[in-house]
Amino acid sequence: MSASFIQSPAAEMMELLDELSAFSAPGDGVTRLLYTPEWKQAQQFLLNRVAESGLTAYSDSVGNVYGRLTGTGPDEKVVLTGSHIDTVVRGGKYDGAYGVAAAFTALRYLSSVYGSPLRTLEAVSFAEEEGSRFPLTFWGSGSVTGLYDGGEAENCKDAEGVTLQEAMESCSLSGEESAAPRNDIAAYVELHIEQGIVLERTGTQIGVVSAIAGQRRFAVSVKGTANHAGTTPMGLRRDALAAAAEMVLQLERSAAAAGDPLVATTGRLEAFPNTPNVIPGEVVFTLDIRHSKEDELEAFCAAAASAFEEIAKRRDVTVDITARLSASPAPMDSGLSAELEAICTRQGRTYRTMVSGAGHDAQLFAPRSRTAMIFVPSRAGISHSPEEYTPPEELAAGLDVLIALLYKLGYEEMNDNGFAPHNTKERWT
Amino acid sequence: MSASFIQSPAAEMMELLDELSAFSAPGDGVTRLLYTPEWKQAQQFLLNRVAESGLTAYSDSVGNVYGRLTGTGPDEKVVLTGSHIDTVVRGGKYDGAYGVAAAFTALRYLSSVYGSPLRTLEAVSFAEEEGSRFPLTFWGSGSVTGLYDGGEAENCKDAEGVTLQEAMESCSLSGEESAAPRNDIAAYVELHIEQGIVLERTGTQIGVVSAIAGQRRFAVSVKGTANHAGTTPMGLRRDALAAAAEMVLQLERSAAAAGDPLVATTGRLEAFPNTPNVIPGEVVFTLDIRHSKEDELEAFCAAAASAFEEIAKRRDVTVDITARLSASPAPMDSGLSAELEAICTRQGRTYRTMVSGAGHDAQLFAPRSRTAMIFVPSRAGISHSPEEYTPPEELAAGLDVLIALLYKLGYEEMNDNGFAPHNTKERWT
Repeated sequence: MSASFIQSPAAEMMELLDELSAFSAPGDGVTRLLYTPEWKQAQQFLLNRVAESGLTAYSDSVGNVYGRLTGTGPDEKVVLTGSHIDTVVRGGKYDGAYGVAAAFTALRYLSSVYGSPLRTLEAVSFAEEEGSRFPLTFWGSGSVTGLYDGGEAENCKDAEGVTLQEAMESCSLSGEESAAPRNDIAAYVELHIEQGIVLERTGTQIGVVSAIAGQRRFAVSVKGTANHAGTTPMGLRRDALAAAAEMVLQLERSAAAAGDPLVATTGRLEAFPNTPNVIPGEVVFTLDIRHSKEDELEAFCAAAASAFEEIAKRRDVTVDITARLSASPAPMDSGLSAELEAICTRQGRTYRTMVSGAGHDAQLFAPRSRTAMIFVPSRAGISHSPEEYTPPEELAAGLDVLIALLYKLGYEEMNDNGFAPHNTKERWT
Repeated sequence: MSASFIQSPAAEMMELLDELSAFSAPGDGVTRLLYTPEWKQAQQFLLNRVAESGLTAYSDSVGNVYGRLTGTGPDEKVVLTGSHIDTVVRGGKYDGAYGVAAAFTALRYLSSVYGSPLRTLEAVSFAEEEGSRFPLTFWGSGSVTGLYDGGEAENCKDAEGVTLQEAMESCSLSGEESAAPRNDIAAYVELHIEQGIVLERTGTQIGVVSAIAGQRRFAVSVKGTANHAGTTPMGLRRDALAAAAEMVLQLERSAAAAGDPLVATTGRLEAFPNTPNVIPGEVVFTLDIRHSKEDELEAFCAAAASAFEEIAKRRDVTVDITARLSASPAPMDSGLSAELEAICTRQGRTYRTMVSGAGHDAQLFAPRSRTAMIFVPSRAGISHSPEEYTPPEELAAGLDVLIALLYKLGYEEMNDNGFAPHNTKERWT
């Protein structure tokens, strides 16, 4: 049986989070890129810690690390919870790692208090989500959910030209292909910092995620005529930057008019030749547009493209809009969301239903398993930065909600949805 | 006496222009930076050519090359004509070199047809105007007009760390300081390509420059908050790029409202962190604003700054505007401009009075000598490019107008303005 708790689950989770943050490349914040020595040490540390804790520790062919608490019921399907272990360059200690630390802590705690569950629970530390080393994202959860169809290991290279396969081999992984997709996941639950400012601004403890927004990315190229800034009268210009500026403002205005949860951003813009005394002849910029509903996302993008073309025509410049990424919205399971709301109410916590504008491992599970996400506030909405911070009591609140949902899913008897009360112990609220 | 012409002055000028364009660093177009081997060869070639032509050839301590045709009259002051020999990197063969080739050709032609002038005429090939190698401009004409006050040779370094002094020494120049200012310049006349599209668009042969526009440059920094493009609702953003875009458009709109000759340009813009999925937290951009009237230029800049501050305040971002350059407008001599118009009328050429939005050596002479500038069309307004082009017949028209003005200034008897008819030969129209 598992080792007993000598401190509160929240304190144990904080300790684990601190320990994980020590596995980092030098520099500010936490930098733990896929298949680097610090990444390998972090996953090995988790494997050892999980094994000591009484959970069954194992890892798969891409290096996802699991802790399994085997159920005693007839259903062989698994309730999985976790997040990713990798970070961006100079990231914070909460993005991903919080969900990992909470998942392993929750299972150890449930096991120590309630013993074996009816349904098998697993905690997972996914190998990769951020896309910060190789030109691919969700290498961990994507491998589990069948996102990859082979060839990635051989073809993807990092900035130094190291292939994903070579990187895997350096971590004693087979390096051949992604893990085999799992068909035994009944539910996936992920706890994560919000990475936004909505919870903080509204003074809310818990975000119950209703959907992960779909996303479209586009590259826009505007071409006019580069000309002398002194000798070209205003009326004879084909200024690519002024045209791009009008498009950026048009995007902002129409996004504000569309209202939440639509967000639209130009994050990157470059002008050519980018010289003070030359009218820009070309500007390239990006669009990042997100919404939780596919049809509204699609309609917004189409309207933006039309507006851009109208601006280009009026200004006698050309515009080319190239799609770069298209991810469908991932609705969370409404039954699990309702359960999360009920748990918050029982626990006396403020909560709000919200769309996640950021992508998460959960979006890959949503089409195939019952999936839920829980958010806690991010101070000033900052993430992907050493400044990332959430106070311990807010992290603890998220852990409590996670434990309650896992109790519900793992220990209560099956109902029509495949889950229901298991009354051997006092119920976790 | 001078060697006689065996071809038309226009043909000789074209030949000289072609010969000068051969002195170039490798690559597209013409690259002839100050004090490089190709620059030295070009100036040496001119010195030799001038000496052969019967003009008195000499150069000064910064490497300006002159050809002098000494006058027989009592006035010791000089009528100077020319332009600069240096180019930008991968520039064209006309900017600067056309005015040089025309100046030397004009003097040789006047000398061969009319003999010695009443007033001394000099042609000049200024060492530098573009600022393409060292962080200073007008090193040639500025040295002659007292722009520099010492220390530049020692302190200015090119991108490779070579000081201006070392570069001068590599061309067998003293390298000590700039040339002594000349106080003997009665008039300066410069023939140049327009570097704009006004003459071409209006089908005009000759531009009579009324003034060289004054110029202000500013660096603008807008600071908001970098945040996640997915998780930050539109209403909670402090988007530095959207704010900058509004400023760029405001500048364009107010410049169009001000009307010619006001021009205002954002040529350079950079966003930070410049990543597709991050709302830009900072944007820096440049302003280049020009007008021929100091008070209107000043008022426009002040209004733009106010408008930017209003935009920043409304958007809850900060804006800092730093002045980087301030050059006063340089009005040309109205008497000489009137004479140019009369010459065009006599020669049956179309002309228009116009402001030069580009800077030229002439602007340094304007406050101290009677100064005139003549423009010929630039195809598509293109300059500072290997694509720079003006057809030979349009270059010839500019040469004819230059010769006529130099005849007027050099060969006609003094009038109240210090210049007048000299009736020894048939008048040059």
